[in-house]
Amino acid sequence: MSRAQHDPNLDLAFSRHVALPAEALWAAWTQPDLLMPWFCPKPWQTVACEIDLQPGGIFRTVMRSPHGQEHVNSGCYLVVEPNRRLVWTNALAPGFRPLPPNRDGDDFLFTGEIALMPIEAGLTRYEARVSHATLADCDKHAAMGFEKGWSVALDQLIEFMRLRQAAAGQ
Amino acid sequence: MSRAQHDPNLDLAFSRHVALPAEALWAAWTQPDLLMPWFCPKPWQTVACEIDLQPGGIFRTVMRSPHGQEHVNSGCYLVVEPNRRLVWTNALAPGFRPLPPNRDGDDFLFTGEIALMPIEAGLTRYEARVSHATLADCDKHAAMGFEKGWSVALDQLIEFMRLRQAAAGQ
Repeated sequence: MSRAQHDPNLDLAFSRHVALPAEALWAAWTQPDLLMPWFCPKPWQTVACEIDLQPGGIFRTVMRSPHGQEHVNSGCYLVVEPNRRLVWTNALAPGFRPLPPNRDGDDFLFTGEIALMPIEAGLTRYEARVSHATLADCDKHAAMGFEKGWSVALDQLIEFMRLRQAAAGQ
Repeated sequence: MSRAQHDPNLDLAFSRHVALPAEALWAAWTQPDLLMPWFCPKPWQTVACEIDLQPGGIFRTVMRSPHGQEHVNSGCYLVVEPNRRLVWTNALAPGFRPLPPNRDGDDFLFTGEIALMPIEAGLTRYEARVSHATLADCDKHAAMGFEKGWSVALDQLIEFMRLRQAAAGQ
């Protein structure tokens, strides 16, 4: 019931089959205590996370480098379809409020989307997509290592959730 | 299931009891042929309207002055709760895509919300709210005559829908 319009020139995307149930991937994306351990590629750490899981609700993370440099990303959710689809943007503040027009030149706006499709028991197709306003923003995000970064983060997610499953099974 | 965070310094709002059912108000806001006759205060006219009524779907209108000056407003829907609540923004393009950072200085971003609450048969509380990024944008919208403009448009809506009801009843 919601529409994403893809544009290969303005979007970055990758997909992978993951040996976890969709519910585990959803939990890892939507609960702060399950998101912080894997969300940014090491040695950076996610040191804060705020989630209000409803359209218009806040999604805010703070990443910290080993040298103490911090990067805050804040926005709101747009689509919340449990275990299937999560869409958020940093182009609107919580409550769907527009952002002031004069942005920091170092920053850029994007809308992110995680789509989960169960394939069989314990196996899920995972698709991550980030859409940008301009070719320049899209190229910049690609040059920052979008695919490698998100792929490494997904590896960290899988490892964390499997360790957690194993610990729960003991 | 969606959250609007109101800020009296950054929002403009007005509410009124309207002697129409919520369904009639909803139809007037969501069907191009029922929206165009009333949407902007005369003598301006709404000469085009595109609606894809789902989160992420386009909401685009073109208003024309008696002298042929045109004003285009384009954005997308964020919340679509039939007969109750409609939220849209011009701060995201259709498909939830962010806007390029360098906006026309004459323009401003807002998120609009129409909330409908049935009071009794044929009587509805109508609330219109527009949220802005900055006090400057909010003040500018107020100075442009937000409340009078939206109130006149609502009068036009009521007149149009009543004439339509009367015609259907003959």
